[in-house]
Amino acid sequence: MLRTMEGIESLVYGIGIAGVAAQAAAGVLDAGRKPFDLFGIVVVALAAALGGGTLRDLLLDRAVFWIADQRYLIGAMAAGLATFALVRLVRLPARLFLLPDALGLALFTVSGTQAALALGAPWLVASLMGVITGVFGGIVRDVLCNELPLVFTGELYATASWAGALLLLGLMAHGTSPGQAALAGGSLTLALRLCAIRFGWRLPMFKARS
Amino acid sequence: MLRTMEGIESLVYGIGIAGVAAQAAAGVLDAGRKPFDLFGIVVVALAAALGGGTLRDLLLDRAVFWIADQRYLIGAMAAGLATFALVRLVRLPARLFLLPDALGLALFTVSGTQAALALGAPWLVASLMGVITGVFGGIVRDVLCNELPLVFTGELYATASWAGALLLLGLMAHGTSPGQAALAGGSLTLALRLCAIRFGWRLPMFKARS
Amino acid sequence: MLRTMEGIESLVYGIGIAGVAAQAAAGVLDAGRKPFDLFGIVVVALAAALGGGTLRDLLLDRAVFWIADQRYLIGAMAAGLATFALVRLVRLPARLFLLPDALGLALFTVSGTQAALALGAPWLVASLMGVITGVFGGIVRDVLCNELPLVFTGELYATASWAGALLLLGLMAHGTSPGQAALAGGSLTLALRLCAIRFGWRLPMFKARS
Repeated sequence: MLRTMEGIESLVYGIGIAGVAAQAAAGVLDAGRKPFDLFGIVVVALAAALGGGTLRDLLLDRAVFWIADQRYLIGAMAAGLATFALVRLVRLPARLFLLPDALGLALFTVSGTQAALALGAPWLVASLMGVITGVFGGIVRDVLCNELPLVFTGELYATASWAGALLLLGLMAHGTSPGQAALAGGSLTLALRLCAIRFGWRLPMFKARS
Repeated sequence: MLRTMEGIESLVYGIGIAGVAAQAAAGVLDAGRKPFDLFGIVVVALAAALGGGTLRDLLLDRAVFWIADQRYLIGAMAAGLATFALVRLVRLPARLFLLPDALGLALFTVSGTQAALALGAPWLVASLMGVITGVFGGIVRDVLCNELPLVFTGELYATASWAGALLLLGLMAHGTSPGQAALAGGSLTLALRLCAIRFGWRLPMFKARS
Repeated sequence: MLRTMEGIESLVYGIGIAGVAAQAAAGVLDAGRKPFDLFGIVVVALAAALGGGTLRDLLLDRAVFWIADQRYLIGAMAAGLATFALVRLVRLPARLFLLPDALGLALFTVSGTQAALALGAPWLVASLMGVITGVFGGIVRDVLCNELPLVFTGELYATASWAGALLLLGLMAHGTSPGQAALAGGSLTLALRLCAIRFGWRLPMFKARS
């Protein structure tokens, strides 16, 4: 569709900012159910939006992405404050955020996996980096709100991320170009997540008998 | 007031140790409300005292301050154990710790902001590093105690830190020397925090309707 | 007993994998009491098994061990999934995991302490790195499960780790070879932990009066 690498890169960058903003908005909606003040809500929003990529960069010993380029930080803060203001004015349906959040998950998965590959990480580690980038922010958000992480209990989320990361890695191992593998992996993550929301797909749960 | 940079540096160093010790003592008082053993209390005290600076150093890819200079660690442990012993002997007013804690907040804000600036971080990131250095320890303390972070719910704390960091950055952008900007920024943080405690200043809170 | 350094190293490596696997299994048993799905349980197991060493490597600015060598990751995931499957089939006594877990604690203590020493850390920092490597995974596990960290409330655990680390450091300061000091320190940790389980040894607790 896009003819130049620059086109793809600016698309990826734009979706990255959009994903960060969507997860910041979701963080505000979550934190707003607690007796937090404005600062607490902004912190939870930033942790939700930036937590996954931060842990990925610390683990891979790269420069932390939002320190190297503060547009991510500004995007997350602006989205968090805008959501804070909007929620006081109009009643937003919580499901409104699910589509950009799913887009962000797909992009974070792809970017996390490829960042790890670029640094020579083995395949299993690279796939986990994709998952960590996609889901860790949501885990931090729920820990700060003193709740069980939603990622561990709801419809497919991390599983969708992992499936996309593995598809990307499998395609690249068979010679597919990085761009096409990223497109395929990201699309699988997005499709799985949207289907999981629509049809209520879940992983098996268990209660230990001990 | 002080004529040499060495004088300022040893003053800053002393306040830094005092701030670490004060936050360790506050951690003991917080953890002591839980059924923790002595070790758990010491860990919470260390996390409260060293957590903010540790996250700052990890994010900025600097050597972690208490690993490079273990006097911070010894100060935090000594303060934690002394508080543990004192609380068993006499009834300490909880508010006793608010003054050194506020001093520590002001100093951590200044040192975190300047450390980020020295590494070339953009201004918004630098101001957030000041805030992170000041408040992250208290967040970890409350997460370990399985409570909502007090920083998100009480009187102005992080906001005082952020205001001081922004003043410091604004003054330096207009040519003020680092030492004077640090003095002004730190003083603003300290004054705001003390006034917030005295007069109950808070940020607006909200409950999302969704 | 073993005549070559290679023999010792492969023994240490094997116990390391076993320790990681044991802590992953313990993580599954803990997470299984919550309404987590399979992914959530695997994440808690990985966090329990790899969290301590990860924090150690981040603090010391080393390559994260399970990224450099993914056999640790595979071991932790295999042990977590096997435990998940087993618990659905047969009733496992929870105490079954205490022996390998104690072995893992002893080994993690030794390896964490020596890794810090090798990087020139002062003795107090080095001993804490041993403790962090041994216990941080269990703390993350309990925070993710929204519970008070067991490490802070139960029988001697971190204390056993610290005693072993200090013995190792004391012996090395008096000229004992690293291998013998590691054996002595690890044995002390293991013995203290097993005695604490058997005889219910605990540290003093306190409730602050404020």
